[in-house]
Amino acid sequence: MNVTVYRKAHFNAAHRLFVPTWDDAKNAQVFGKCSNPNYHGHNYELEVGVTGPVDPITGFVISLDELKGYIKEEIEDAFDHKNLNVEVAEFAQLIPTAENIAIVIWNKLRQKIAAHLQIDVTLYETPRNFVSYNGPV
Amino acid sequence: MNVTVYRKAHFNAAHRLFVPTWDDAKNAQVFGKCSNPNYHGHNYELEVGVTGPVDPITGFVISLDELKGYIKEEIEDAFDHKNLNVEVAEFAQLIPTAENIAIVIWNKLRQKIAAHLQIDVTLYETPRNFVSYNGPV
Amino acid sequence: MNVTVYRKAHFNAAHRLFVPTWDDAKNAQVFGKCSNPNYHGHNYELEVGVTGPVDPITGFVISLDELKGYIKEEIEDAFDHKNLNVEVAEFAQLIPTAENIAIVIWNKLRQKIAAHLQIDVTLYETPRNFVSYNGPV
Amino acid sequence: MNVTVYRKAHFNAAHRLFVPTWDDAKNAQVFGKCSNPNYHGHNYELEVGVTGPVDPITGFVISLDELKGYIKEEIEDAFDHKNLNVEVAEFAQLIPTAENIAIVIWNKLRQKIAAHLQIDVTLYETPRNFVSYNGPV
Amino acid sequence: MNVTVYRKAHFNAAHRLFVPTWDDAKNAQVFGKCSNPNYHGHNYELEVGVTGPVDPITGFVISLDELKGYIKEEIEDAFDHKNLNVEVAEFAQLIPTAENIAIVIWNKLRQKIAAHLQIDVTLYETPRNFVSYNGPV
Amino acid sequence: MNVTVYRKAHFNAAHRLFVPTWDDAKNAQVFGKCSNPNYHGHNYELEVGVTGPVDPITGFVISLDELKGYIKEEIEDAFDHKNLNVEVAEFAQLIPTAENIAIVIWNKLRQKIAAHLQIDVTLYETPRNFVSYNGPV
Repeated sequence: MNVTVYRKAHFNAAHRLFVPTWDDAKNAQVFGKCSNPNYHGHNYELEVGVTGPVDPITGFVISLDELKGYIKEEIEDAFDHKNLNVEVAEFAQLIPTAENIAIVIWNKLRQKIAAHLQIDVTLYETPRNFVSYNGPV
Repeated sequence: MNVTVYRKAHFNAAHRLFVPTWDDAKNAQVFGKCSNPNYHGHNYELEVGVTGPVDPITGFVISLDELKGYIKEEIEDAFDHKNLNVEVAEFAQLIPTAENIAIVIWNKLRQKIAAHLQIDVTLYETPRNFVSYNGPV
Repeated sequence: MNVTVYRKAHFNAAHRLFVPTWDDAKNAQVFGKCSNPNYHGHNYELEVGVTGPVDPITGFVISLDELKGYIKEEIEDAFDHKNLNVEVAEFAQLIPTAENIAIVIWNKLRQKIAAHLQIDVTLYETPRNFVSYNGPV
Repeated sequence: MNVTVYRKAHFNAAHRLFVPTWDDAKNAQVFGKCSNPNYHGHNYELEVGVTGPVDPITGFVISLDELKGYIKEEIEDAFDHKNLNVEVAEFAQLIPTAENIAIVIWNKLRQKIAAHLQIDVTLYETPRNFVSYNGPV
Repeated sequence: MNVTVYRKAHFNAAHRLFVPTWDDAKNAQVFGKCSNPNYHGHNYELEVGVTGPVDPITGFVISLDELKGYIKEEIEDAFDHKNLNVEVAEFAQLIPTAENIAIVIWNKLRQKIAAHLQIDVTLYETPRNFVSYNGPV
Repeated sequence: MNVTVYRKAHFNAAHRLFVPTWDDAKNAQVFGKCSNPNYHGHNYELEVGVTGPVDPITGFVISLDELKGYIKEEIEDAFDHKNLNVEVAEFAQLIPTAENIAIVIWNKLRQKIAAHLQIDVTLYETPRNFVSYNGPV
């Protein structure tokens, strides 16, 4: 009897989308306003789902305090009020699209959460644009 | 590494649920107030998900501008501020329930979006009633 | 010590915005897609606020059951799943813009709610367009 | 062509998380403030999804009135404004975590909804903590 | 140039509405299911507004950290995961309706926030029922 | 009979809070993470209210198309995907707190919207922090 437990969190960050090997015109064509060299930003809303069996004594799949702790340490402390391109090591060589941010979040949480539990990450860049990543297939 | 990218959109439309070969009593029994011959309407909220591999250079599954364009041309321009029963060809013979509207939307987008990408459609008829359709199984 | 108590409700309806003494071109210019002769529709979200002193025994400004009853009888039963132009008497001669619908709702509730209580009406036509009316100034 | 139809509902309830065979210190360590012996409470938001083929005549997977009826009788009437630990038989021996409440809801609806239809239950304990259960795997 | 700064917070609590000098029938008639002697509960959402002039150097009406601190100490720490009737001194003799909870919150914050700043309190008992209190008139 | 018409809009931007005449320690003490020299960002949600009499023929306080046009030209085109400190002239000498951004927005709209109409601006910096400004008192 597998249940998924979800926890929401959020962080505010600046970013810029551009490919350094492309010229400005090409970056502007593909990324539009998102390639602004002075950066823009978002309130990222994060939803982490953890799936597994329910402990017959505690009634928990995972302790919410434990899950909140991983999200705080790995994601909020690392990304909140940061410039993703400049200050977050994972994006030094990786373009910080919502897709890539979701993959980075999943990989960071995968190292903390017990291996028998499945992880789903949904990341809202805005209320109208969001992505989800559930690990490699 | 497949990621799903979601984009929200919306359209406002009138509709009526009724089966023309049934009499009024039978329509009222099955569809209740929704069979009102003078129509009623909704703010439909649409969520389109597109799943596929992340381009290693752009960090995109699909360009949001491209996805927004398809949704605008195929769905918003066709359905917004329309009477679905009277003015939208797909519902000339098909009852415009949320289920059928979602299937029509999926079929229209399927013809535009690259075939290697999976499409998920979620359609809110009201904030409390919604449907999802992910293609034929 | 005045407190305001709010109750939310909703109704789904079709409508059309047009001035019968204007020609189609003028109606289209002023009302755009909203003048579609086949109607379109909305999920209207209604927020009714009632302001007054708190009863020292019950701790209520007004019984929520009483307020819900007025909203149901006067507004939901009258407007829900209706064509406002065709089926609601108040709009036989009055154009059903959000502004006018809010005024009609306020006037209907004013006749039911005790005169020492102030009434505020907020009406969402869509999540992005809404109006409020608090009575004649 | 399977479609999923979702219906939202809600109930307000009190609960307490504790294991009777544990002492207070152990309960406090695992459940924190949720083990308060005087209870606390939540506005539970429930989302029930029903998946199956679309009826070619009605355009429905399931009549919303039928689905609303099951949710009202089985869940809202049984749980709303109740103390889950004290007044709901299913939790006499079962700790009322969100995980277990979702499983109980699924099991109750499974007995009412036609067997060829799949059921998904999502339960929000707060806007930031929620769980989903789709039946035994 | 007065600006209002709003901060949202939340707490989960159990409560019961009843007048001890009334018999059960009278309590049930006035308070319905809310008079359940075993308690029920809510996720209360709180919105605190503080109005005053903008500091010309910092651009702040009030430091959000300062405001968050007052809300945490005075409201969240005092009410969260509590039984309002049993564990919160202010409701020992005062019925914990949303109206009275809002007044208590306003009074507690009034003692902390600088006197030249106006305070507005909005309290959601459920997403559909809420109250606001802005101080004695 | 005055009615208020509200329109929502949004823009995404980067900003930094700091006073150039203060040293880093003082800026960090007052603005915390918001003083990060590499910027962070937000999805700003804007709500503009316009109050005035209802035109007896059109049923409008103001044409929504007109209001949307002002918001697009004055606010969205000027602020969206921008670095407020670096690229928006109004904030060259003015710290871009939510309070000051709201005042700037109000002043810009005041020059466009007819003088007999009152303007209210509410600006969400995050879903939990927002401000409102209704003009000089």
